[in-house]
Amino acid sequence: MSHTLTRTPAADRFWMPAEFEPHAGCWMLWPERPDNWRDGALPAQRVFVEVATAIARFEPVSVGASGAQFAFARQQLPPGIRVVELSHDDCWMRDVGPTFVVNARGERRGVDWVFNAWGGLDGGLYFPWANDDAVARKVLEIEGVDRYRAPFVNEGGAIHVDGQGTALVTEQCLLNRNRNPNCSQSEIETWLQRYLGVSRIIWLGEGVFNDETDGHIDELACFVAPGVVALSWCDNRRDPQFAISHDAYVRLCRARDARGRSLKIIKLPQPGPLFSTAAEARGVQASENARPRPERTRLAGSYTNFYIANGGIVMPLLDPRTDRLAANRLKRAFPDRKVVGVSTREILLGGGNIHCITQQVPLAGRPRKRPA
Amino acid sequence: MSHTLTRTPAADRFWMPAEFEPHAGCWMLWPERPDNWRDGALPAQRVFVEVATAIARFEPVSVGASGAQFAFARQQLPPGIRVVELSHDDCWMRDVGPTFVVNARGERRGVDWVFNAWGGLDGGLYFPWANDDAVARKVLEIEGVDRYRAPFVNEGGAIHVDGQGTALVTEQCLLNRNRNPNCSQSEIETWLQRYLGVSRIIWLGEGVFNDETDGHIDELACFVAPGVVALSWCDNRRDPQFAISHDAYVRLCRARDARGRSLKIIKLPQPGPLFSTAAEARGVQASENARPRPERTRLAGSYTNFYIANGGIVMPLLDPRTDRLAANRLKRAFPDRKVVGVSTREILLGGGNIHCITQQVPLAGRPRKRPA
Repeated sequence: MSHTLTRTPAADRFWMPAEFEPHAGCWMLWPERPDNWRDGALPAQRVFVEVATAIARFEPVSVGASGAQFAFARQQLPPGIRVVELSHDDCWMRDVGPTFVVNARGERRGVDWVFNAWGGLDGGLYFPWANDDAVARKVLEIEGVDRYRAPFVNEGGAIHVDGQGTALVTEQCLLNRNRNPNCSQSEIETWLQRYLGVSRIIWLGEGVFNDETDGHIDELACFVAPGVVALSWCDNRRDPQFAISHDAYVRLCRARDARGRSLKIIKLPQPGPLFSTAAEARGVQASENARPRPERTRLAGSYTNFYIANGGIVMPLLDPRTDRLAANRLKRAFPDRKVVGVSTREILLGGGNIHCITQQVPLAGRPRKRPA
Repeated sequence: MSHTLTRTPAADRFWMPAEFEPHAGCWMLWPERPDNWRDGALPAQRVFVEVATAIARFEPVSVGASGAQFAFARQQLPPGIRVVELSHDDCWMRDVGPTFVVNARGERRGVDWVFNAWGGLDGGLYFPWANDDAVARKVLEIEGVDRYRAPFVNEGGAIHVDGQGTALVTEQCLLNRNRNPNCSQSEIETWLQRYLGVSRIIWLGEGVFNDETDGHIDELACFVAPGVVALSWCDNRRDPQFAISHDAYVRLCRARDARGRSLKIIKLPQPGPLFSTAAEARGVQASENARPRPERTRLAGSYTNFYIANGGIVMPLLDPRTDRLAANRLKRAFPDRKVVGVSTREILLGGGNIHCITQQVPLAGRPRKRPA
């Protein structure tokens, strides 16, 4: 039961709450396509189980699996995790799932963005993507939450908000001609204001180097609290990430949020740089319908791609040289949450990380303060 | 989230409540297979929409549709009805869905019977049936209700209960060698006692004439209240249904329920007899995987195959010569419920009727009195 509404969240006085606000739970999908995930997706599935299990320590988790994989997913996941049948073209719930919005009475609705596999036929990652584009609607039906169908292409990983009127995005993604080629930057701003209920948009430039999503914000930077942003950082001038992180830093230093605050910036070290190995690349079945995954590809590893759960942080472990420093920075950034690490190289090999495969459902029935 | 439990409902002090007790809602499936439903299932789909809409006047309705049919089902069904993705081999939720049981604290669990398409390779109606057999589990996951996997073949349409310790079944179905060939009648009784939480089983003989389910009780007779049974009745001695109904009547007259009461019997007239037409048979695509549907087949039409909703009865309209009499008898049997009729010949052509395509979910959180 999910009515499709004809206005916009902002017109109905709904907005997207921050990820660090209380959740009802978390949604994920079950990976399976052998032309993206090596060795028939079994190594990735094992890590998805670890991520789901880690999040389930803090809040209820639902996992959507295709009909063909349902029984195996059900068997592999702990019984306390809900498994539902949900067709998809790949498993990036952050990008294909709904973006939930709330109002002052604590009611929830969902934004269902148009999805085109990160660029459609102009640089997208696979074809077709019709099942992916239907995921948000199916989640909203199960949750019993009404739906806004946004009239433009976007992904959940391309946006972060502070829940107080500010959104964080990248030009590389939001202004990419393979998303909404007929929209100017100011038109995109208007859409984001209407569908996220924000009044201030902070534009960073490029996303993490070689991020195949065209620079999703959720690999580069995120809000950890109102007025506080974590940023993936690189000190090595010869690394292409150096200029990207420095440009983002400068923009963040100059920015003011919707309440006029300047931002505190927490630097998270970049892991690696990390590259796929020949053995890893060999496990992927070549296919005409998906982008190839050759060996020695620079991987868009980033510690900012963590998930904020109720009372917990589930973060990727990617490189023994930097994992501990990143974890310590996150512990300081989230003193009231338990930081749990999961080794997620298998997810990174498929093109993303923990934040990309999760989507939070905000808690309902709790009055909330309207943003600026 | 649905744990699979290792004991039995009776051992855990759970039992199946009667259909006339309060519901949380109703589940259905969306018909689609063109080798069972004529004209690409569109006429049947229209009637399923009418049935779902009628039930939704009284209680929440969820409809499971395959991935291929999801968008169309969502479009055809009213927005107040929940549509979820659910693979199936056909659409008989009564038989493939869970049988819910409750306890004295109002907690719910679900029984997931082994399903073999009404007889497996020995007279079953189609092959394969693996998706059907997974439906109950998927419903229980979405509902968040724990599951008993019954270790024997059964269908929801093969059982009726009064919620006070009595079950009503037929020998033709429950003792059929194509269900549980290695079980004696007393072993079947033991299984029913354990999984339905009943202490008394009333055995009728054969089900409705030419019922392809091997004589499901829900075409022949049902409880309308404790101590009161509706029975499909035939006065024409030359009709093969005559002997079946009379035998059932005699058995019901002699029976005592779990509380020692004799039963009041309400006779519902048999419609027709009804036969499929050449035009109807032509619309079904012949297939090696499903039983053929030739013209001039006697249809197992019965007014006892109605659904009891909260405050309502949704009954099949099958024959203008008998519809009104049947409706009046149901109105008298259920004086506090609104009786709504839906013309369901299109469902009957596919092998069942309104009760066969529905499955109630009992209301939770409400203390209940343990049966005898």
